[in-house]
Amino acid sequence: MQRIEEIYNRISENSSSFLGYPLAKDFDYKEFAPFLNLCINNVGDPESPSTLAIDTKDVEKDVISFFADILSSDIKETWGYVTNGGTEGNLYGLYLARESFNNPIVYYSESTHYSVKKNLHLLNLKSIVVRSQCNGEMDYNDLENLLTLNRDKPAIFFLNIGTTMTEAVDDLDKIKALIRKYAIKDYYIHCDAAFLGCIAPFVDPKPKFDFSEGIDSISISGHKFIGGPIPCGIVLAKRKHRNRIVNSVSYVGTLDTTITGSRNGLTPLFLWAFIEKHGTKGLIERAKKSQELAAYTEEKLKQIGVNAWRNNEALTVVLDKPSKHLCEKYQLASEENIAHIICTPGIEKKQIDTFIKDYEKELLVSEVFA
Amino acid sequence: MQRIEEIYNRISENSSSFLGYPLAKDFDYKEFAPFLNLCINNVGDPESPSTLAIDTKDVEKDVISFFADILSSDIKETWGYVTNGGTEGNLYGLYLARESFNNPIVYYSESTHYSVKKNLHLLNLKSIVVRSQCNGEMDYNDLENLLTLNRDKPAIFFLNIGTTMTEAVDDLDKIKALIRKYAIKDYYIHCDAAFLGCIAPFVDPKPKFDFSEGIDSISISGHKFIGGPIPCGIVLAKRKHRNRIVNSVSYVGTLDTTITGSRNGLTPLFLWAFIEKHGTKGLIERAKKSQELAAYTEEKLKQIGVNAWRNNEALTVVLDKPSKHLCEKYQLASEENIAHIICTPGIEKKQIDTFIKDYEKELLVSEVFA
Repeated sequence: MQRIEEIYNRISENSSSFLGYPLAKDFDYKEFAPFLNLCINNVGDPESPSTLAIDTKDVEKDVISFFADILSSDIKETWGYVTNGGTEGNLYGLYLARESFNNPIVYYSESTHYSVKKNLHLLNLKSIVVRSQCNGEMDYNDLENLLTLNRDKPAIFFLNIGTTMTEAVDDLDKIKALIRKYAIKDYYIHCDAAFLGCIAPFVDPKPKFDFSEGIDSISISGHKFIGGPIPCGIVLAKRKHRNRIVNSVSYVGTLDTTITGSRNGLTPLFLWAFIEKHGTKGLIERAKKSQELAAYTEEKLKQIGVNAWRNNEALTVVLDKPSKHLCEKYQLASEENIAHIICTPGIEKKQIDTFIKDYEKELLVSEVFA
Repeated sequence: MQRIEEIYNRISENSSSFLGYPLAKDFDYKEFAPFLNLCINNVGDPESPSTLAIDTKDVEKDVISFFADILSSDIKETWGYVTNGGTEGNLYGLYLARESFNNPIVYYSESTHYSVKKNLHLLNLKSIVVRSQCNGEMDYNDLENLLTLNRDKPAIFFLNIGTTMTEAVDDLDKIKALIRKYAIKDYYIHCDAAFLGCIAPFVDPKPKFDFSEGIDSISISGHKFIGGPIPCGIVLAKRKHRNRIVNSVSYVGTLDTTITGSRNGLTPLFLWAFIEKHGTKGLIERAKKSQELAAYTEEKLKQIGVNAWRNNEALTVVLDKPSKHLCEKYQLASEENIAHIICTPGIEKKQIDTFIKDYEKELLVSEVFA
């Protein structure tokens, strides 16, 4: 059909040209085309078999095990499922957190993704926004001030393992120090690692963000660093939190511990195929290649006189915002006077070079007219 | 890969043999295979253009318009989006309802899908379960008793337009009569039409369940009567309710009025392709054919002495529960001493005949041993 062809061409063109979004582009899932003609449904808890066996839960469980492993946990201690994206994973983590306490307060930085505020509202959770440092990381002094004022309330810490704009990582050690300092006994730590979840385990030095550091839950996007045609994600939580929910739900005679119930059975296949093909070693190489491209981009930008920087080994290069024309041409996300390029798998060096040339031209022109 | 082939074969076999689930089987979406290699993302509100144009929002808006039309509304009055399934649609409807009042109570019948209780818990909403009649329809006397005890609180009515087990339809006229009788001014009506949403508009007599009858929102599944490889759905609400949410979200600088944010861009394509191919006329024929098969099934069951019945023109035939062996062979969902067959598009008459023969044999054997 002509309209479908037009849509295909538009998306194809736009998805090959953008430089500003955390989405890998180098995937190929055409081998799964035959599945487009099947009823597939991973209904309910991945560990609970369905009477209607049209699911891919076995594969889903393998995907969850893989992530538990790279996040320094064991599937005996940790439970999870494949979500419809990072937002659902954050919603789920915050839901588990809410169910753990009476009247808790959620602390999250102002650099947090906008969807979190929406999640908090949906869950009727009290929250306080913590100031950020210039690099996008939480301001721990501000957090400390807020904590001292609310020592009587259970604390839910919502950490960014890679903020949307600058890929800043909140420092779990500093937060744990505050937890000790103020003798906070009722607390829960959730990490939003939408983009960095598949990268951070392999960064040197490795940020402290996983189950070995005592986190309670984590949300990772599947369609970001791994990539794919359908938004998806992984949520992992300590098994004890999931069990708290299971009890309350089994009361209505079901083991449906997930948020959506009927769930996508294709995305676990995609994630599993990626893991089978690349494994941990492949992920490490993939991360390294992207980091190198990011370092190259930062360097090239500096060479033409643009203010550019990265948080430690980030794939995100923050730069002075170019003209609206360039932002649109390369689809760069921007905020106030900064923009960013995210060096995801599938972005070629020559695309960066073309952008640099364009930006250099723009700078020369503006100098002439200055 | 061998494992993928095995999964394909298992799902293919199981999805062709089941008789007990409300999932159409006659779809073909292989033409969309090329899209499996593209980044696609319908991020945020369907009506709000994305800076990153890798979406199918134009098509999504057309799908929503089509549903607004068959639900006796106009896209000027009604707003909606393509969800990840019926549960998300119900969650969204209940969320809009919660935002409309202070401290409301949700009334829903005991025949309601289990996910609704989970939704209510997630949203921190107070609720009361209303007794059901034998056919699965709400017991309006019980509802009346509950209403008289809570006349001081805003009321959210959660109606089933087709219950999971018996496809019973709650009677909006009777509920509206109670609303008038007790002068309830603050109320909200949400309809869960997961399976029947694409059928009920064409049933004779047409059940009262759509926007012309004053409902506030409705959730319909896409992968049920229309069918598809990925759970999806449509949620529609009066535009004024969505606008209430927009205001509160625009405060954080976004027009993200949906629950998940990053959203599936493939499922709107599937739904749109179905609508293009079949249109309203095709839906009517499709419903009629399924109703005829259901009538045939009911009749055949009665002929072999099985207690079988349907709610008005339902595709769901309720029957005395056969042996565990037969329930498993034909994947019939069961509850206490009843089971059901759902005559969805893609189920063949000969499959019904084979089941009837099997059941008849079972009855003869049990007679011999009685």
